[in-house]
Amino acid sequence: MSAHFRKLALIGIGLIGSSIALAARRQGLVDVISIATRKAETLAEARELGLGDIYTLDAAEAVRGADLVILCAPVGAYEAIAKAIAPALEPGAILSDVGSVKGHVVKVVGPHVPQGVSFIPGHPIAGTEHSGPSAGFAELFSGRWCILTPQHGATAAHTEKLAAFWEAMGSDVEIMEAGHHDMVLAITSHIPHLIAYNIVGTADDLESVTKSEVIKFSAGGFRDFTRIAASDPVMWRDVFLTNREAVLDMLGRFLGDLSILQKAVEIGDGAALESIFTRTRAIRRSIISAGQETAAADFGRPHEAPPEPPTPFVREHGGGDDA
Amino acid sequence: MSAHFRKLALIGIGLIGSSIALAARRQGLVDVISIATRKAETLAEARELGLGDIYTLDAAEAVRGADLVILCAPVGAYEAIAKAIAPALEPGAILSDVGSVKGHVVKVVGPHVPQGVSFIPGHPIAGTEHSGPSAGFAELFSGRWCILTPQHGATAAHTEKLAAFWEAMGSDVEIMEAGHHDMVLAITSHIPHLIAYNIVGTADDLESVTKSEVIKFSAGGFRDFTRIAASDPVMWRDVFLTNREAVLDMLGRFLGDLSILQKAVEIGDGAALESIFTRTRAIRRSIISAGQETAAADFGRPHEAPPEPPTPFVREHGGGDDA
Repeated sequence: MSAHFRKLALIGIGLIGSSIALAARRQGLVDVISIATRKAETLAEARELGLGDIYTLDAAEAVRGADLVILCAPVGAYEAIAKAIAPALEPGAILSDVGSVKGHVVKVVGPHVPQGVSFIPGHPIAGTEHSGPSAGFAELFSGRWCILTPQHGATAAHTEKLAAFWEAMGSDVEIMEAGHHDMVLAITSHIPHLIAYNIVGTADDLESVTKSEVIKFSAGGFRDFTRIAASDPVMWRDVFLTNREAVLDMLGRFLGDLSILQKAVEIGDGAALESIFTRTRAIRRSIISAGQETAAADFGRPHEAPPEPPTPFVREHGGGDDA
Repeated sequence: MSAHFRKLALIGIGLIGSSIALAARRQGLVDVISIATRKAETLAEARELGLGDIYTLDAAEAVRGADLVILCAPVGAYEAIAKAIAPALEPGAILSDVGSVKGHVVKVVGPHVPQGVSFIPGHPIAGTEHSGPSAGFAELFSGRWCILTPQHGATAAHTEKLAAFWEAMGSDVEIMEAGHHDMVLAITSHIPHLIAYNIVGTADDLESVTKSEVIKFSAGGFRDFTRIAASDPVMWRDVFLTNREAVLDMLGRFLGDLSILQKAVEIGDGAALESIFTRTRAIRRSIISAGQETAAADFGRPHEAPPEPPTPFVREHGGGDDA
């Protein structure tokens, strides 16, 4: 299955959009890339970075003649974009996206998709805490999964072709029902982000511990949470506004489990604590085996060497070396 | 201030103990390192790794003649160790430790410390998710903070000398009151671990999402939590058994904040969500500026290149390229 498209239209050009542009170009998957953004500054940045061939503030113009259109804007903007581009979508085109929720996307975009266009919402499970057009890189999707949720009317050939496109950028592809996607991502991504944002906020608000202490002693574990809590605020606002049910369901389970742990701490139940803390190691090992995590200690963070001793230490002491 | 000791006794030789052995040796800070463990297998491993000069299963023997004794065992074992070594501690020696809680250590070890011995509990805020004698490395403490909590009877000269020892291994040193340490670490380390262990457990228990899905799609954020949830279970059991009050206090604040976020998701309050998600970015920037975190995207995790396209893609299509 050829993964080649004549014209790829990217509506929105943040971390994911720019990474698609770079990866698709490097792999020779597209002839022409047209980029549309809402803000002129973002468009100017994309142009300066040379991410595409055509730059426009008019999404409809960007999709005209495109055989692959990917929405890469925050999910909250999708409905307006769908209305704007619908008349310009070509029959035979694929309309996809990269949003972190899928049920809502189907609901707000689906009704605007013209007949003859294959609507195949997608979600690459990849990212960093950086955002904007300059944050993208061609390797972002390599070794990561991309979930596709083809809708009624999408041809099997189109789904295969879009899968081949993601595979050519280094991804593994999984086909999934949109509602199930939203459950899976609620626990693997949305709740982790909610909790990370929350604990960083809690630490910021304390009076008993200063901000400077939180920062200095963050290597005790806290700093791991700050990475995803530094993710794009608008994107994440939209995730929680549009995947409410699954998020609240998973949050309820998380809180239920946490109250068991809280009780174990309260009553000093060491056996319960040790048993809970033991089973969680296996999951990390599986994630490393599945190629979704580095086996290097501490995520492979660099560890600098201690300073050279300035002068040789005296090896012989005449007593009283602590004076 | 000389940071040199004639004989360093390490009671326990896991990640932290072995890293001290390697760093102290490399920096020429000690003449002799004696190592005591509870288990013969661990001692054999330490010997094989060449971490010390003297190896014994008898902690009292290890500390005899030592001018620096550092407890590196799980905190739950401290009281028994303190009783065992007390008669063998030399006058003029420093007794320290590396435990993650300090109030409890003062309470259970303090009463056994003989007069003439400076009791200066310590805590290097450094670690990885790996444990055991083979997990140590000499760079572990470099650029990280070490907190010292000198007790009544510890001489100022001894505190300075122990600080110089940690500084020579690359650490910055902060002197703190034990109770305050336990509050600071509850939010920067203990609650992050509790939450990480909890969400990994929650994900493991779901029926609606398979374990294989959790693993495959963990790059959405979940995998970040699995690192600290892979930490040593016995060590962390002891932390929660011995820092109960501060942990429950901070957990209460975390849960209070989380219920505000939960409410915002429930009622779809986008403005509140965006505002909470925006303020948390500043903390990560400060942690990076303070040298406690890498500025590299995604913790600097390696990103592999996408595969080379196996054959050049055909650039011209006679229509029907989606067939």
